[in-house]
Amino acid sequence: MNLMKSLIPAAAIVALPQIGLAQEAATGEAALHTQYIFTTLLFLMAGFLVFFMAAGFAMLEGGLVRSKNVAMQMIKNVALFSFAAIMYWLIGFNLMYPGDGWTIAGWVGPFFKTTVLDPVGVGADAAALDYASVGSDFFFQLVFVAATASIVSGAVAERIKLWPFLVFVIVLTGVMYPISGSWQWGGGWLSEAGFSDFAGSTIVHSVGGWAALAGALILGPRIGKYKDGKVHPMPGSNLALATLGTFILWLGWFGFNGGSQLAMGTVGDVSDVSRIFANTNMAAAAGAVAALILTQLLYKKPDLTMVLNGALAGLVSITAEPLAPTLFGALWIGAVGGIIVVFAVPMLDKFKIDDVVGAIPVHLFAGIWGTIAVIFYGEASLGTQLLGILAYGLFTFVGALILWSILKSTVGIRVSEEDEINGLDMAELGMEAYPEFSKG
Amino acid sequence: MNLMKSLIPAAAIVALPQIGLAQEAATGEAALHTQYIFTTLLFLMAGFLVFFMAAGFAMLEGGLVRSKNVAMQMIKNVALFSFAAIMYWLIGFNLMYPGDGWTIAGWVGPFFKTTVLDPVGVGADAAALDYASVGSDFFFQLVFVAATASIVSGAVAERIKLWPFLVFVIVLTGVMYPISGSWQWGGGWLSEAGFSDFAGSTIVHSVGGWAALAGALILGPRIGKYKDGKVHPMPGSNLALATLGTFILWLGWFGFNGGSQLAMGTVGDVSDVSRIFANTNMAAAAGAVAALILTQLLYKKPDLTMVLNGALAGLVSITAEPLAPTLFGALWIGAVGGIIVVFAVPMLDKFKIDDVVGAIPVHLFAGIWGTIAVIFYGEASLGTQLLGILAYGLFTFVGALILWSILKSTVGIRVSEEDEINGLDMAELGMEAYPEFSKG
Amino acid sequence: MNLMKSLIPAAAIVALPQIGLAQEAATGEAALHTQYIFTTLLFLMAGFLVFFMAAGFAMLEGGLVRSKNVAMQMIKNVALFSFAAIMYWLIGFNLMYPGDGWTIAGWVGPFFKTTVLDPVGVGADAAALDYASVGSDFFFQLVFVAATASIVSGAVAERIKLWPFLVFVIVLTGVMYPISGSWQWGGGWLSEAGFSDFAGSTIVHSVGGWAALAGALILGPRIGKYKDGKVHPMPGSNLALATLGTFILWLGWFGFNGGSQLAMGTVGDVSDVSRIFANTNMAAAAGAVAALILTQLLYKKPDLTMVLNGALAGLVSITAEPLAPTLFGALWIGAVGGIIVVFAVPMLDKFKIDDVVGAIPVHLFAGIWGTIAVIFYGEASLGTQLLGILAYGLFTFVGALILWSILKSTVGIRVSEEDEINGLDMAELGMEAYPEFSKG
Repeated sequence: MNLMKSLIPAAAIVALPQIGLAQEAATGEAALHTQYIFTTLLFLMAGFLVFFMAAGFAMLEGGLVRSKNVAMQMIKNVALFSFAAIMYWLIGFNLMYPGDGWTIAGWVGPFFKTTVLDPVGVGADAAALDYASVGSDFFFQLVFVAATASIVSGAVAERIKLWPFLVFVIVLTGVMYPISGSWQWGGGWLSEAGFSDFAGSTIVHSVGGWAALAGALILGPRIGKYKDGKVHPMPGSNLALATLGTFILWLGWFGFNGGSQLAMGTVGDVSDVSRIFANTNMAAAAGAVAALILTQLLYKKPDLTMVLNGALAGLVSITAEPLAPTLFGALWIGAVGGIIVVFAVPMLDKFKIDDVVGAIPVHLFAGIWGTIAVIFYGEASLGTQLLGILAYGLFTFVGALILWSILKSTVGIRVSEEDEINGLDMAELGMEAYPEFSKG
Repeated sequence: MNLMKSLIPAAAIVALPQIGLAQEAATGEAALHTQYIFTTLLFLMAGFLVFFMAAGFAMLEGGLVRSKNVAMQMIKNVALFSFAAIMYWLIGFNLMYPGDGWTIAGWVGPFFKTTVLDPVGVGADAAALDYASVGSDFFFQLVFVAATASIVSGAVAERIKLWPFLVFVIVLTGVMYPISGSWQWGGGWLSEAGFSDFAGSTIVHSVGGWAALAGALILGPRIGKYKDGKVHPMPGSNLALATLGTFILWLGWFGFNGGSQLAMGTVGDVSDVSRIFANTNMAAAAGAVAALILTQLLYKKPDLTMVLNGALAGLVSITAEPLAPTLFGALWIGAVGGIIVVFAVPMLDKFKIDDVVGAIPVHLFAGIWGTIAVIFYGEASLGTQLLGILAYGLFTFVGALILWSILKSTVGIRVSEEDEINGLDMAELGMEAYPEFSKG
Repeated sequence: MNLMKSLIPAAAIVALPQIGLAQEAATGEAALHTQYIFTTLLFLMAGFLVFFMAAGFAMLEGGLVRSKNVAMQMIKNVALFSFAAIMYWLIGFNLMYPGDGWTIAGWVGPFFKTTVLDPVGVGADAAALDYASVGSDFFFQLVFVAATASIVSGAVAERIKLWPFLVFVIVLTGVMYPISGSWQWGGGWLSEAGFSDFAGSTIVHSVGGWAALAGALILGPRIGKYKDGKVHPMPGSNLALATLGTFILWLGWFGFNGGSQLAMGTVGDVSDVSRIFANTNMAAAAGAVAALILTQLLYKKPDLTMVLNGALAGLVSITAEPLAPTLFGALWIGAVGGIIVVFAVPMLDKFKIDDVVGAIPVHLFAGIWGTIAVIFYGEASLGTQLLGILAYGLFTFVGALILWSILKSTVGIRVSEEDEINGLDMAELGMEAYPEFSKG
């Protein structure tokens, strides 16, 4: 619209410019409102898709643990989402995005401010017309932090106590994730250094993976997992549920990556969201196919859980740069993610790191890979990408190690041997997920 | 747009006003079209989210009944949604919103009119430009009435016959709900009295709860539930499924409350929808956390089904006013909902009211609470809120009591003792939900 | 914007009307952008809904097979979607829609071109402003082809080898479906002949059904299914999962049919999408109710799987023309679909065609019915509809027969008798879906 002004000859009648301006202003204003509505709608839509990933993680993990620990995995997933939602409102959002929505009314203490939404029926003059409503932005960011916490819960399953786990989640979602997130998405030093992580291969996924790795190390493996120098598989109790979880996560990822365009009000932006949808889908498909073919070749039998994790690894891999690659780019980036998972799962076992659902290969290793892969299509250099990976890794891994250690040495984080053998469901909750199905 | 007029000097060239007006009309027209599209889209999006709640109820209930009654619970949930869809088209919609879409062509008999959609490719002159398309509105309202019926099915599970239940659903969704709904949402006497119920804590949820309570009373408890003065727990057969159902309901609630803004075409409206999303999520999280902490304190072990119902109670509690509260408001309103559930479930047992899935605490008690809580943030007085609660309670409870009693004394509503013990699946359907899993 | 420039004359005053025109053009331009965003958004939203149908098929089929074949059904569904996604990018999309997105860069070989998306941040001058972004269109079309492949996987379950099945999928989704699809949706000879199939009762569903029928014929029935002249039912292992799958498919169908309007940027278009939502829902409800009542009358007991398939048949039936019918039209078209299923399932058994999940009655028979039903509301003649049905039937059935036969005579398509009895999960994958639940 601004261009138009210069096109109107100076010699026009006196009144003309005013009309022109008024019209222009009106049209421009309307367009701006429409853009605001579109972007807000993007956040709401992407937000509910990412919200649903909480169910995806719950089903995936519930399907991959043994039946005696399913109820515990369910309560953990509901509770971690709920605590994350509260902590992110209480501290996280304003810690991660300083300046966003800070008002006197939001001031709670000297150290942090709670999230304050736009007032009811906010006028166009008070709204962030060039962006989106605070509520939609907050909601979208909130479901991201919950994803980070979900990643941890899978890796430390089947042996961790409920409450210490939840305390970890509270600190992770209220403090750790927001602080490191602000380095990049809050406009901090890493974003200034040129680090590039579109939707969070590193900021969300590998952060979750580092926290999970620290937890798995401090906790130690499940009883019997590594005995007599051998790896004893402990098959998941419900692969239908695990598959459902994977499909739900795949669905949610359209919101995860698509919403990270952070704008939908122009031809270019909505087309970019479309590119992201197509690329995200391609990377997942390629990760699944790569894992399928590779397990067929390596083991002569394809492995369903590897295929599921392959799809997820493909998704994590494309998350750092889902926009710039061609569809072929998304294909090979995702395929490498799937391949990483197939090799990383037994490698972790070699180190006796017991990751129940494969969260570390999927979210940490593929997350690192995805962040590096940006250099092939995005505008980041290998150096800054490695800097970012390192910074997030150090901060999160060390922070998580400290936090897990404190929890271990104070309240303890692992259930008793007896409870672990009997299953966390009866021991910690006094209930069973499938009370009627007799165990073989 | 109107403001613009004043900017145009009165003494402008002759041609000016006309051009101005024409332009203005054109721009205003375009903006109006865009608003119509946005609001229609809101109904479609919110509508499919609320539709999916049918699956959520099915999974929640299927997970909380014993395995011998799961197939029955499935068929009930599919059938109740289907009958509700047909009845609401046949009678309900026009009974609830008199004046909406009534045409000669829709006249079926002297007493009711079926729903008539906008014609194919409706022109802007014939569309309700200040609102939304009839089809989207009908779809959105229809999935609400189905939710009401779903509430009933959980409470009366494991002992009710299929067809009498469906007859109840037909009357509830075709007549009872639309009549009482019209009092408020159809612009009737309660809305004139100042009653406030944004998305239906009372109109949808407690109505479902009252109908469920009447059913549970008339049916009586399951065999063996209250024996020798003790409460005998009958654990649900699949808590993973129940958790999935809860997450699906939580997801659907963004549509339930968000869509009830009934507009998305302005900066203020879309921002309000965002507020509603954020508040709805917060209330659910707070309800879950409250139930988690409270069951930990009361029973030393957290209770997964209480946590699930706590989240749902948080959602029901915020439904009467999801817009006006701050996030902190949503937090404490939802938390109280979660607390109510933890105390109400054993209380119902004390009165030997056997509500299989906890539908009455969640939808009736938390629904009443949510309707009262409006007075802290909305503009309603305690008096009018109590009036509304009372009016809906009396009408629905008495109506449901009569209807259940008629059904009982004519066709009978309860299966035989033998059938109940063997399970409704084999007795009424001749099939099992999990035929291969041997029962422990 | 480009058009505008040329409208502004060098010598301005005279220019008032022209400015008017310029303004108008600007407004028109803005409106065009908005329309493009809306339609692109429609494809994205409908696309993720249809994507989720992959999970719906997986759950439906996983629930209807015996537990020893569940993991195989899961891996098949994930893999078929993934291969379809890759094949449709590699060949299918440009084969089906010649002219869409063909560029030098997309040229891979002399015979086909891969899909090329809009460039990042595509300018309004380069975008298809009267339609939608290539990425959204590709994504939407891609999830359709995956649905076709999913239909096949249910019918041939419990006895087919994994890799031959996937080879079939690769040819079906990369070549067969795109070729026949182009006859109608690519603007080919059938569309010129006046054939009408709005969202694909024939093009998607009966094509999947024909391919499934050919596969079931070539494969032969499962061991023990038809023994001693009797039909031996082999009940599904998890009807809760099958119900979930049905609900997910029902949800996805709003995208399937609604997105097929291919436009959402005008009052008429969004209202049409609304009509489609309402009609789609009604047809599903009517199909479920028809199957419920009919199985009650015929067998004295309602049949859950028939009700689920009845709802799906209702959905397939309305897919050829979800826009033109009234709600009553959708009701009876869907109800006939439900009735067809109830009669067709035992009929197939009479011919000893073993369709494990009922995919052929639902997608082929109801698909044919829906395509014929267009003549009652749409503008097609019976002749052209039969021509289309015949053309798709011949091409797909003969092509699939040939392909299945080649696979059979080369690599073999059926597992060994021993493997079939032990279950495909242990035989082909070496894992079980429910390893802990002992089998009754």
